[in-house]
Amino acid sequence: MKTIKIGLLGLGNIGTGTFKVLEMNRAQIEAAAGSHVVIDKILEKDVTAKRDIAVNPDEFTQNPDDIFKDPDIDIVIELLGWIEPATGFMLSAMKNKKHVVTANKAAVAANFDLLHKCAAENGVLFRFEASTGGGIPILNAITTVLKGNEYEEVMGILNGTTNYILTQMTEYGLDYKDVLKTAQEKGFAEADPTADVEGIDAANKLTILMALMFGAYVKPDDIPTEGISKITKKQIDEAKAQGRKIKLIAAAKSEGGKIEYSVKPMQLENNHPLAGVSNEFNAVFVKGNAVGELMFYGKGAGPLPTGSAIIGDVIEIAKLINVCGGCGK
Amino acid sequence: MKTIKIGLLGLGNIGTGTFKVLEMNRAQIEAAAGSHVVIDKILEKDVTAKRDIAVNPDEFTQNPDDIFKDPDIDIVIELLGWIEPATGFMLSAMKNKKHVVTANKAAVAANFDLLHKCAAENGVLFRFEASTGGGIPILNAITTVLKGNEYEEVMGILNGTTNYILTQMTEYGLDYKDVLKTAQEKGFAEADPTADVEGIDAANKLTILMALMFGAYVKPDDIPTEGISKITKKQIDEAKAQGRKIKLIAAAKSEGGKIEYSVKPMQLENNHPLAGVSNEFNAVFVKGNAVGELMFYGKGAGPLPTGSAIIGDVIEIAKLINVCGGCGK
Repeated sequence: MKTIKIGLLGLGNIGTGTFKVLEMNRAQIEAAAGSHVVIDKILEKDVTAKRDIAVNPDEFTQNPDDIFKDPDIDIVIELLGWIEPATGFMLSAMKNKKHVVTANKAAVAANFDLLHKCAAENGVLFRFEASTGGGIPILNAITTVLKGNEYEEVMGILNGTTNYILTQMTEYGLDYKDVLKTAQEKGFAEADPTADVEGIDAANKLTILMALMFGAYVKPDDIPTEGISKITKKQIDEAKAQGRKIKLIAAAKSEGGKIEYSVKPMQLENNHPLAGVSNEFNAVFVKGNAVGELMFYGKGAGPLPTGSAIIGDVIEIAKLINVCGGCGK
Repeated sequence: MKTIKIGLLGLGNIGTGTFKVLEMNRAQIEAAAGSHVVIDKILEKDVTAKRDIAVNPDEFTQNPDDIFKDPDIDIVIELLGWIEPATGFMLSAMKNKKHVVTANKAAVAANFDLLHKCAAENGVLFRFEASTGGGIPILNAITTVLKGNEYEEVMGILNGTTNYILTQMTEYGLDYKDVLKTAQEKGFAEADPTADVEGIDAANKLTILMALMFGAYVKPDDIPTEGISKITKKQIDEAKAQGRKIKLIAAAKSEGGKIEYSVKPMQLENNHPLAGVSNEFNAVFVKGNAVGELMFYGKGAGPLPTGSAIIGDVIEIAKLINVCGGCGK
């Protein structure tokens, strides 16, 4: 068996989760990949953090070129977050003929075309399953086995923090500010929750879904976006009285060549497939002209679910390296 | 672009649906496959049936060898149903180096190992997404991008007829016999509904899921199977009063190397992800040790959803033919 060597950019929560998934399920991962899979080098400043995993200290580097210029590295996994320097690093990796996997929705949404063009030009694979829906294998499905469809619609609950807040408000009749405070204390919401509660995170993910499903690139900033910070207990109670739930929905619909899209709180009938998606869970509802209505449901965040998606991308790349050297590299 | 030629075995409802999906979405299917995709020959006795599609009469044959021995045919799609002659035909196709796609759960469940062994020996691909969950792309997910997980559990609503009957009984307080009669009149249930209502169809699908998820082959006959024909209005009302719904659940759980499995009516709490799956919809709930809980929801039957799954398999095979001649053929 060939050995696939990985260079990891960032060993925070998600990097540690990815490391753990690989250690915990190594046998079946390598059987599926048809290769040994080894994390060989890690770009990370904080080499002393307590991580609950056994990392060989020799693997750490502070110089990204140690990874990009290493001819033995096959795949770079980018988990730094933020648009830069992540995008620049991914482009450098691709130019050095490394396949790239990322969980970084902001970078993929901001630079979708640039990253895809660079991957194609360098004959490398670029995968980002973990960027949208966390552990839910939605991107693989819509880009492979569902391609017999023309897509008509997508609706997603794509942000766990806001879904947790809305669920708690609905189930316990609480105010937005109180639930946000508790969520922050529990680590479900960031100290600065703006990107989540104002719908920016969901807009990034909608950009990615629209680009893959409709071939239409819309910048996240150009998506009409409304968050949940103005939702009141009263609005939730009124919806409830009408048999509805308020959810933050990222939606796009294609009709007659025109695509309508938005991120905003919506009232869903209680029997809508997305209405039953509670707390930190995510779900994506897709409509295709052949398959009809589909829904994918699962954990949209967290180190292990996100690690599952990242390792899934690694497996798919490893399989193509085995059959055709990555098909283009 | 290469042309991928298909030999179709059977042009009933599902064959016609597959034909329609290909015609309706040809441009994006061929772009995804990287090949022209042509249904070249069709094994079908009934050449005169009204089908609402434009089939060239020259494509029909009554001799399966016209397909198996044709060196230009790349993929055989088997849609005859029943275990035989379907299994024998699939084996013949494989021995003649044809990749095989099928929607036939009975044949795949009965002959899982035999079919896989024959495909491996002949270096051909064997895919059967449509056999389990209809249009839901569950088999592709569990065999590819979720392989970073050790699977712990699967629970499925895998039969649309029984789910329709139970939903109608629950929502309208009707008796089993009355709903079955209406379902038969509407074409949602067969004249002889035994395979559906006694859980045999769901057991076939559970055999397939267990083989793929746990590497454990259990014959459908060896799965403890109880159908819904004895479910009374009273049982449904009692469940309802306790905030539960009765669903026919195909379930398997792996714990400490031991797998427990059954097909039987179960009471699910109303907030269980599977409880909201109504009428003819199917859903599969999967638990992995990294990704946690996932659910896939969609139409488990019907010509177009099933056609979507079949064409999805064709696309995946076509892509591998392009990069590596099918990788083994």
